[in-house]
Amino acid sequence: MNQPRILDGKAVAASVLDECRTETAELKEKGITPGLAVILVGTDPASAVYVGSKARTCADLGFHSVKIERPEEITQEELLEIVADLNADPAVHGILVQSPLPKHIDEETVIRAIDPRKDVDGFHPENVAKLVLEDPTGFVPCTPAGCMRLLEVSGIDTNGAEAVVIGRSMIVGKPLAMLLVAKNSNATVTIAHSRSKDLPAICRRADILIAAVGRPDMVKADWVKPGAVVIDVGVNRIPDASKKSGTRLTGDVDFKEVSPRCSAITPVPGGVGPMTIAMLMKNTIKAARQLG
Amino acid sequence: MNQPRILDGKAVAASVLDECRTETAELKEKGITPGLAVILVGTDPASAVYVGSKARTCADLGFHSVKIERPEEITQEELLEIVADLNADPAVHGILVQSPLPKHIDEETVIRAIDPRKDVDGFHPENVAKLVLEDPTGFVPCTPAGCMRLLEVSGIDTNGAEAVVIGRSMIVGKPLAMLLVAKNSNATVTIAHSRSKDLPAICRRADILIAAVGRPDMVKADWVKPGAVVIDVGVNRIPDASKKSGTRLTGDVDFKEVSPRCSAITPVPGGVGPMTIAMLMKNTIKAARQLG
Repeated sequence: MNQPRILDGKAVAASVLDECRTETAELKEKGITPGLAVILVGTDPASAVYVGSKARTCADLGFHSVKIERPEEITQEELLEIVADLNADPAVHGILVQSPLPKHIDEETVIRAIDPRKDVDGFHPENVAKLVLEDPTGFVPCTPAGCMRLLEVSGIDTNGAEAVVIGRSMIVGKPLAMLLVAKNSNATVTIAHSRSKDLPAICRRADILIAAVGRPDMVKADWVKPGAVVIDVGVNRIPDASKKSGTRLTGDVDFKEVSPRCSAITPVPGGVGPMTIAMLMKNTIKAARQLG
Repeated sequence: MNQPRILDGKAVAASVLDECRTETAELKEKGITPGLAVILVGTDPASAVYVGSKARTCADLGFHSVKIERPEEITQEELLEIVADLNADPAVHGILVQSPLPKHIDEETVIRAIDPRKDVDGFHPENVAKLVLEDPTGFVPCTPAGCMRLLEVSGIDTNGAEAVVIGRSMIVGKPLAMLLVAKNSNATVTIAHSRSKDLPAICRRADILIAAVGRPDMVKADWVKPGAVVIDVGVNRIPDASKKSGTRLTGDVDFKEVSPRCSAITPVPGGVGPMTIAMLMKNTIKAARQLG
């Protein structure tokens, strides 16, 4: 049994945030304070936690931070008006609409309304296209960007490596596949998903295996090639009687089973999660720099 | 030695064009004549052949067809003006700028200038994003769309199949991978390329192997799993003393070697090539319908 390297997302995120702190100071000297506005609709407790954490990180870095909370009943027009105001606000460089939105609001319409130059989540079609076209002026969605940064900082070479991404979402799977196959990464990339035949065999090919499906502990030891690098994007809350809350977080990878087989693995929590917020801050600084 | 099914792109393209003919007649009854404008800059002989062939197909279908030829020396501004005029012309539903453009013109700027609703080549970022986002209102680039149609008409099931795409271009490889992995195709997709390690072994996994690299006869028999479906997107002109012209066309697949191993294969010429023009006509009809 091997002792794998634990890819400590918390530590790497902290160093990314240190970078952000320096960059923010430099921008402030030029009279630019990076500004991030987060819109939270309704009372979803998980969303509230995410938004709170983003706001705290902004405060910590010295960003101008705007938190807009609106009740579940807000109309789409009202929400679009808020977005339009933020688009026009020169103190705001990044705009993020916390997902999920209530059902009566069309999320895509709202995302399209955000000025692509302020779309720090990277969900606007303009930024989706830039990612595919390998245009570096775009914004890469924060979770895939965080995975790439974690690989890079950990010295894991993607060149010619076989990467398998499980999951084909717009938020993680597809953009991550595009990043891995791009000319500055050069991985051979397989996108697998719920309809793939013999998923374990497909995963066993991977030098770099990335799970982004949202199924607790789905990836088992025999899905993993010995010595592979495993990146777990899953964040699943499951019952755990031993915890005060009655629940705990777990990833898409059965960490206990898988970790002895691989050369490096991200834990959940403390792996990809912290990277996501750090990359959001990076994106906001990039927006501030580009908007001037 | 097996006798594979030859996927006759010429015949399938002819039936797609028959569909187009019917649809054009229907649109004309509603007072809409599909209109396609093709801009040709310079005197590249291959480009002239393509443009000529597109114009003939338009005429054959009863489209309104505009062919704009300009010398190599045209400025970018002049070209952008032509595009702007065509964007504003209600008789034109599709606009195509024949590639390659002279070096002093930035192709991306020109593509971005085309009204995305008239971008029947599917190269505008708006349509790139729609493809990734699986938004059916967008335009899919003609060659990948032609490959998908050929598979579909030939009754080749992509669901759960292992597809390997060799090539990661914006015109074929990447969009084709996105189409194959989309929810209405459900293939497990691997994108391989020049930097992939052990390309033959990767290709041997494929139930559906698609070569889009531009290297004559690169794919050999031992790259192909027995019984696989092979789609050859390559169009390479190579010397051939036995021909009057001294050259002949060949694909990226060594047809003679590979065909006995596979269950179905596209020839070059007469495979994907004719499908590309047919799908351009389909896209123009779609544009005419959507613009009304």
